[in-house]
Amino acid sequence: MADPLSTTFAALADPTRRAILARLTGGEATVTELAEPFAMSLPAVSKHLRVLQRAGLIAQGREAQWRPCRLEAGPLKQVSDWMERYRSFWEESFERLDEYLEVLKTKEGTTGGRDHSPD
Amino acid sequence: MADPLSTTFAALADPTRRAILARLTGGEATVTELAEPFAMSLPAVSKHLRVLQRAGLIAQGREAQWRPCRLEAGPLKQVSDWMERYRSFWEESFERLDEYLEVLKTKEGTTGGRDHSPD
Repeated sequence: MADPLSTTFAALADPTRRAILARLTGGEATVTELAEPFAMSLPAVSKHLRVLQRAGLIAQGREAQWRPCRLEAGPLKQVSDWMERYRSFWEESFERLDEYLEVLKTKEGTTGGRDHSPD
Repeated sequence: MADPLSTTFAALADPTRRAILARLTGGEATVTELAEPFAMSLPAVSKHLRVLQRAGLIAQGREAQWRPCRLEAGPLKQVSDWMERYRSFWEESFERLDEYLEVLKTKEGTTGGRDHSPD
């Protein structure tokens, strides 16, 4: 069996499943409500819900007919904690890019703002 | 073909690939250096590197023999941006849990700190 973080990432690797999670940030929803925006059969949506449920990203109520789904925060917190160690890395990268663009802008200025004709 | 975010999440859904990324936060490394900590053949590691490369999470130099790999920040920034909309959600969840634990502690206090004998 996969480790919890791998199971979470695998569950997030699908646009339909991410759209379902986005919908659930607005509150609980039934399977039928969740299926509505998708050109997809109810069994196909249920399959996606099972993947999300196995990853602990959603939980489903026990009421026989309704069984509303809700978002669960735990695994997303885990992803965020994992991401944290890379934050400094990508922030630095984008700062370096900014600095580079500043240097380019300054160069443009000192070379007298030559016009570049389009190819 | 999968959308970029799905490709990134799929690439992150493996502990070996996440360990490779973690190693690369310390700087560039060759395939042989990256393979060292794993009980894994070089082709098996190369396969993981190709998945990371296709997701744009790493880039590999062009020097024939060495071809050092380095971490690329872009896709991780994308994941972080995606996560951002869920941040308030899990922060609230954990605050609610804290509040609940506070209530439990207060209750413990007002019921006179009864001893619970272990079962």
